[in-house]
Amino acid sequence: MLKVHGVHGSPFVRKVLITLEFKGLGYEMVTQMPFSGDEDYKKLNPLGKIPTLVDGNLTLGDSKVICRYLESAYPEVPFYPADQAEKAMADWYDDFASGPVAELAAGIFFQRFMRPRAFQQEPDEVLIANIIDKKLPPLLRYIEGQLPSEAYLFGVFSIADLTLVTPFVNASYAGYDVCSDAYPKFAALIEAVRGEPAVANILANEAKALGFG
Amino acid sequence: MLKVHGVHGSPFVRKVLITLEFKGLGYEMVTQMPFSGDEDYKKLNPLGKIPTLVDGNLTLGDSKVICRYLESAYPEVPFYPADQAEKAMADWYDDFASGPVAELAAGIFFQRFMRPRAFQQEPDEVLIANIIDKKLPPLLRYIEGQLPSEAYLFGVFSIADLTLVTPFVNASYAGYDVCSDAYPKFAALIEAVRGEPAVANILANEAKALGFG
Repeated sequence: MLKVHGVHGSPFVRKVLITLEFKGLGYEMVTQMPFSGDEDYKKLNPLGKIPTLVDGNLTLGDSKVICRYLESAYPEVPFYPADQAEKAMADWYDDFASGPVAELAAGIFFQRFMRPRAFQQEPDEVLIANIIDKKLPPLLRYIEGQLPSEAYLFGVFSIADLTLVTPFVNASYAGYDVCSDAYPKFAALIEAVRGEPAVANILANEAKALGFG
Repeated sequence: MLKVHGVHGSPFVRKVLITLEFKGLGYEMVTQMPFSGDEDYKKLNPLGKIPTLVDGNLTLGDSKVICRYLESAYPEVPFYPADQAEKAMADWYDDFASGPVAELAAGIFFQRFMRPRAFQQEPDEVLIANIIDKKLPPLLRYIEGQLPSEAYLFGVFSIADLTLVTPFVNASYAGYDVCSDAYPKFAALIEAVRGEPAVANILANEAKALGFG
C-alpha cells in the first residue's frame, strides 16, 4: 500500500493526493507536520518537508518528484501530456508553480490564516500588500499569457493545470482570490480545476480535516 | 542548434553544459546574467533565472527540467538510470541538491568569492560560519549516508552524482572543500566526478571564462 506522509492543507500534499485520486490509486495517509524537528521523519525526508511517499522500498520526497514517479510507475491513467515537448512544459510549470508562486501564496496563507489561528497573532498586512500588489502580478501575468483561450493547458486536465492552481487554494482560504477581471483565463482555470471530480473529492476531505466541512 | 542562455560559474548552468557534453550534443551559449532585470529575457524565463534552454519552439527554464528534457529528447547516450526506482531517486537527489544544498553552497560562494570581487565588500564570516558549522552538516551527513562504498550512486556516472557535486565546485572556488575525514565517500565522489572527461572539459572552459585559465 502506498503511504503518503503529510497533512491536509499543504498545497504540495494536496497535489499528490489529487494525483493519486485521479489515477484511482489507494493509499494510506500518515499524519506528519512539516518542519516538526522529528528526527525519525528526517530519516525519510532529510529536509523535514511534506509530503513524502513510501512505495515498498522506495522513499521519495518532494511533490514534483513524487508525481513524476507516480506517472512513471502507474501509467494506466495518465496525468501528464503524452507529447514530449508538452510533458517538458508541464514539468517546467510544476517547477515554476511549486517554487516562487507557491512561496508567495504561502505567504498570504501563513499571514492571514495560520498566524491568527495557530499563533494568535495579527497578520502582517504590509508584507501581504507587497506580495499581492508587487510580487504576484508579474507571475500572474505570465500564467495568464501561457493559458489557451479555453480550459486546460494541454487540452485535458493534467498535472500542469493542477500545479498552477493548488497554491491558490491556500490563498483562497486566506481570503485572496485571483481577480477574474485582471486574469480571466487563470480565474476560469481555477474554477475548472476545482470542478474536476478528483479535485473536488480531495478538497472535501481537506475541508473536513481543516474543520470547514 | 540548441541554445543555452546563461553564464559560466552558475552551478545550474554547469549541470546543463556537462549534461550536453556528456551526451555529445552541440549547443550555442548565449551570455545572460541571472536576475539582470532584462525584460526581453523574462519573456524566455519569467523568473530571470539561468539557465534557459531553447530547442526549436520549446523554451524551458530550470536546470532540472532542462536535464530531464534532454534525457527524454536525446536518449542515445543515457545520463539517467534506466531502472524506474533509481531514476526516481536521481530525480529526488536533483531536487534536494538544487534546492537547499545549492542555496547553502551559493551562500559561501557569494560571500567569499562574489562580494570581494564584484562589490569590493568583506565577506560576512558570521553567516558563513552558520552555513558551514550548522546548516550544511545535516545535509552532508544525509548525502554521506546515501552513497555506496565506492564511486557512483547508481554504478555508472549519472545526473545524480553530478547534481550533488556541482554546488561544491562553487564552494571550492570560495575556499571551502568537503572534509574527507568527516565525509570520506562524498569527498571521493567529488574527486571522481571532477575526473570525468565531460566534467573536466566544462570546468576547463569555465576556468577560462572566470579568468582562472
